[in-house]
Amino acid sequence: MLLAVLGTGVVDPTVPIIRADDAGITRGDGCFEGIRVLTDPTGTSTADKLDRHLARMTRSAAALDITFDEAAWRELVTQGCAGWTDPGEAAMKLVLTRGVDDQPSGYLTIVPLAADYPRQRTEGIRVLVLDRGYPADAFGDAAWLLGGVKTLSYAINMAAQREAERHGAEDVVFVSCDGYVLEAPTGSVIWAVEGADGGRTLHTTPLGATGILGGTTQQLLFERAAEAGWQTRETLATIADLHDADAVWVTSSVRGPVEVIELGGTPRRRRPDLDTEIKKLSGF
Amino acid sequence: MLLAVLGTGVVDPTVPIIRADDAGITRGDGCFEGIRVLTDPTGTSTADKLDRHLARMTRSAAALDITFDEAAWRELVTQGCAGWTDPGEAAMKLVLTRGVDDQPSGYLTIVPLAADYPRQRTEGIRVLVLDRGYPADAFGDAAWLLGGVKTLSYAINMAAQREAERHGAEDVVFVSCDGYVLEAPTGSVIWAVEGADGGRTLHTTPLGATGILGGTTQQLLFERAAEAGWQTRETLATIADLHDADAVWVTSSVRGPVEVIELGGTPRRRRPDLDTEIKKLSGF
Repeated sequence: MLLAVLGTGVVDPTVPIIRADDAGITRGDGCFEGIRVLTDPTGTSTADKLDRHLARMTRSAAALDITFDEAAWRELVTQGCAGWTDPGEAAMKLVLTRGVDDQPSGYLTIVPLAADYPRQRTEGIRVLVLDRGYPADAFGDAAWLLGGVKTLSYAINMAAQREAERHGAEDVVFVSCDGYVLEAPTGSVIWAVEGADGGRTLHTTPLGATGILGGTTQQLLFERAAEAGWQTRETLATIADLHDADAVWVTSSVRGPVEVIELGGTPRRRRPDLDTEIKKLSGF
Repeated sequence: MLLAVLGTGVVDPTVPIIRADDAGITRGDGCFEGIRVLTDPTGTSTADKLDRHLARMTRSAAALDITFDEAAWRELVTQGCAGWTDPGEAAMKLVLTRGVDDQPSGYLTIVPLAADYPRQRTEGIRVLVLDRGYPADAFGDAAWLLGGVKTLSYAINMAAQREAERHGAEDVVFVSCDGYVLEAPTGSVIWAVEGADGGRTLHTTPLGATGILGGTTQQLLFERAAEAGWQTRETLATIADLHDADAVWVTSSVRGPVEVIELGGTPRRRRPDLDTEIKKLSGF
């Protein structure tokens, strides 16, 4: 692991950097980003979609009333990338907490790509369907519920992923208590529908009142898909709608789009043609 | 601040102890307890209701699949208390995280009582009413939502408290999206109703499907109140029911019961007789 601390630079990653009374650990009070790192054969690393990630982290920090100095973070990313030279892919995380006495803590880590991701990209993933508890319109006027904010408070997301593992699945699609598709614990849900006229539409869940996080990979993909002739829509859909779709993916920044091959215990046929196109449009 | 680390003992509290990749900070993945410390004039400290807190932390850790060695934590509390000698009250926190590579992190802190607590105990608190987004039955069969688990993922709880401050209030009562009283961000809600026959009933929100945390102070109070002749009930109530009650409190372990003197912008008359009795029964 590489570790770079805001205001300090690259340091020994095995040495603790967070105090016991940092609000990031005592309250999960902070925000983060997960970013794909691409390193060329000469060892030069770049952070993929960095502007989108920094823009989202700016919004997350603002929603939490935590100071975010974008220029300083950009410099930290440069320092981190300079210190990572293994050709291929890796996973960067930016972490910002409320810190101690309102003095924020900020740092960046880079670790190798998760061992299971290449297989999941090729073979697809089995996905459990779990109730997220909220109705699909819970977040409309409730800023304190932190809808769309990528906070450090991911205990439920992690518990859902453990539940998936117990069921032999690799991921989860959360649904609202009134039956609408929301998102995955660490990704967006998208699906493709081909019309009788040959027109193709990419769908995802609307932001806002649903409280889901706006996915940077989903957003980039939808922009590029629109340029490539797809229709794109924000759709409140049911699990039955996903079963009816031609293909379903979970998208996230480091793993990329991975096709859903089993949804809530029901196998799906694969669409390798669409999967290849969606991955290509997403930069994977 | 006093800091004692599980397996190490008392250490310098200003030295960081948590690694950048600890799941406690990257995912709010862990649990905690907040405990009142009472120190007598000779400097001997004890942790109030320690058995109840350790029992709840055992349940929280089990729900999160994190190992919890109660004997080791009891020893840590002993070490912490031995190092805290300022007569009066203080606030202890126990923190357990999933740690790094599934090697949990555990520690204890003790800090002086919050400066505002004595005034709040005497004068009562103004409370904002905020929607928690969930219906009151969201948690029934959904173990992955971690209902009743005191996780470190408190970003929403903290955002709600900041919202209260912006409205000139000291605390929040969360209601379900279908209009039922749930809990406070860091406490339980209880209310007293006197019948026409002079009988007195203490109410609080039921656990289980509501997902609320079982309050150790609320539970001790209800046991003692029952012995003192009160009826005690778990009641799904509305804010209108709270307005109709004779007195309303938010209870928590360190602050104790504090009477609500304004609820959702509407002033409440105080009941000093009931407030004194409730505080006494709670050990405050």
